[in-house]
Amino acid sequence: MQSRQITLARRPQGMPQAADFAIESRPVRSPGAGEALVETLYLSIDPYMRGRMNDGKSYATPVKLGGVMGGGLVGRVLESQAPGLQPGDIVTGYGGWRTHWTAPAEQLRKLDPALAPVSTALGVLGMPGFTAWYGLTQIGRPKAGETVAVSAASGAVGGVVCQLARLRGARVVAIAGEARKLEWLQAEAGIEAVVNHRDPDLAGALAAACPQGIDVYYENVGGAVLEAVIPLLNKDARVPVCGLIAQYNATALPTGTDKLPLLMRSVLSNRVLLQGFIISDHEDLWPRFLAEVAPLVTSGQMKYREDVVEGLEATVPAFQGLLEGRNFGKLLVKLA
Amino acid sequence: MQSRQITLARRPQGMPQAADFAIESRPVRSPGAGEALVETLYLSIDPYMRGRMNDGKSYATPVKLGGVMGGGLVGRVLESQAPGLQPGDIVTGYGGWRTHWTAPAEQLRKLDPALAPVSTALGVLGMPGFTAWYGLTQIGRPKAGETVAVSAASGAVGGVVCQLARLRGARVVAIAGEARKLEWLQAEAGIEAVVNHRDPDLAGALAAACPQGIDVYYENVGGAVLEAVIPLLNKDARVPVCGLIAQYNATALPTGTDKLPLLMRSVLSNRVLLQGFIISDHEDLWPRFLAEVAPLVTSGQMKYREDVVEGLEATVPAFQGLLEGRNFGKLLVKLA
Repeated sequence: MQSRQITLARRPQGMPQAADFAIESRPVRSPGAGEALVETLYLSIDPYMRGRMNDGKSYATPVKLGGVMGGGLVGRVLESQAPGLQPGDIVTGYGGWRTHWTAPAEQLRKLDPALAPVSTALGVLGMPGFTAWYGLTQIGRPKAGETVAVSAASGAVGGVVCQLARLRGARVVAIAGEARKLEWLQAEAGIEAVVNHRDPDLAGALAAACPQGIDVYYENVGGAVLEAVIPLLNKDARVPVCGLIAQYNATALPTGTDKLPLLMRSVLSNRVLLQGFIISDHEDLWPRFLAEVAPLVTSGQMKYREDVVEGLEATVPAFQGLLEGRNFGKLLVKLA
Repeated sequence: MQSRQITLARRPQGMPQAADFAIESRPVRSPGAGEALVETLYLSIDPYMRGRMNDGKSYATPVKLGGVMGGGLVGRVLESQAPGLQPGDIVTGYGGWRTHWTAPAEQLRKLDPALAPVSTALGVLGMPGFTAWYGLTQIGRPKAGETVAVSAASGAVGGVVCQLARLRGARVVAIAGEARKLEWLQAEAGIEAVVNHRDPDLAGALAAACPQGIDVYYENVGGAVLEAVIPLLNKDARVPVCGLIAQYNATALPTGTDKLPLLMRSVLSNRVLLQGFIISDHEDLWPRFLAEVAPLVTSGQMKYREDVVEGLEATVPAFQGLLEGRNFGKLLVKLA
């Protein structure tokens, strides 16, 4: 049996290109003692992966050239030499972009298909959902009646942020880039106010949607959205910095006006808290996240969307689309 | 008896000019019940005053056109109709730029001249010292062995920050703009490493002074110093944002390279905490500040410098100098 896998052939400059990756086949290794062989059902595609393709200092170790691209997956156990894992069990782990994975059992978490569709372990009930919950509840801390602005609001993280904020009684302003996303946010996710970040007058549109200013800005994108947010930040505003997808492909700083003094002035005058975070630092809070969000998913109160493409060959184009905002909801690659 | 006072004649554009102010004489009002008449000994000159000269949203109400410029003072009671205040008592309060002040007793705090020179109530044992203590201990929270970088390090706030950080076992890197200030920081205040922010290779000089990166950056200035700090921020770095003196006179954003994405990337990758604060929000912690810092001042462990000019006419030129970094230590105007 062969495993097919995507490796990093060279480090992307700007937007990743097909030639930055290679698809290879390797013989599947039979599980040793304490290991299981997993057949991938779904690969997770997430914005943070762009950072791992770069060399140099970031929050995560770069993927090695020639190495398999890292990433979460959900799969089915085919063979097991590990107590507690049986063929047919559904598991999740950080296996990377590959069709088969022989892994130590301690790197696998067994999923309960009765709780929710197993793909949610990569989205609303996985790392993105946990990221949303952590940033909003531990840094953003919205109070009822406050205004919470969320960028990339229909994405895997943003969608959960919007709904958790709404459940806390906040007024949510969801920012996304397509009419169908804004419609979903209003009609399905119950979000009151939406703004299209492609609006030629983004600053004006956002200001109109936030008549009381912004108390919490959940930052997923950077760039033009952040610039439109800065003048609206209220006294004691909190800005959890979760992602900056608009600048991940940048190969140089933009030129023009330097907006750094604008941000700093607001931070000072408004006593703004800006806090970056990486969810892997906070695994201790996972049970609290799951205790709050899993019942909302099981009951259907928490809406989520999955954007599923099929086949390993679809992975890189899907990742390119993610960096351009072309996905709609949590992006997954369905393999088996 | 006449009080002489400085009023705001027009709102400064950029660096405040002499013509933006007027000196007026007004008859002194005799104290009513519960009031005292105070003769000013020292006026305080502080960077935050630049913000109050502007109209529009800031953290403090703007000074009205034609109104007396606000500010702290230390004075001697000449007459009193208030219980607990006697002629000759030394008091401090927010009286503004004037030679005499008739004030309700609850706006006056009596000073003990035996504790420390009374002028320190405007510096190391006043608002600037409290600001230093709060930002460092409540936001910066340096641990022994960490690197703490401090801008405007020989100023009224920075000098206290440097020494409190050193007393906590941190490695302090003091940034200032003149050789005499760097000498004082090393020889008198006991700071190990100093950097001149006028160094043509500021980024290189700061990097060389911070071989382990920066864990806490106490921000007083913004501008070029902040830009040199960003690449050196460590994982979990904390940045108390106390002041931005380099940009207070700016009438437009600078052009060239936009540094905002650079800051945001570091905030995300390094989980940086950036927190603006205004000390008037935190009066409840005043006793804790005084309990720690007053004994250090009385014992002589905490070094401080005062830069004293004389006469009301010297106030505006001194304030201009402050905005250009020409003062050396806490800037005071001596009146009586």
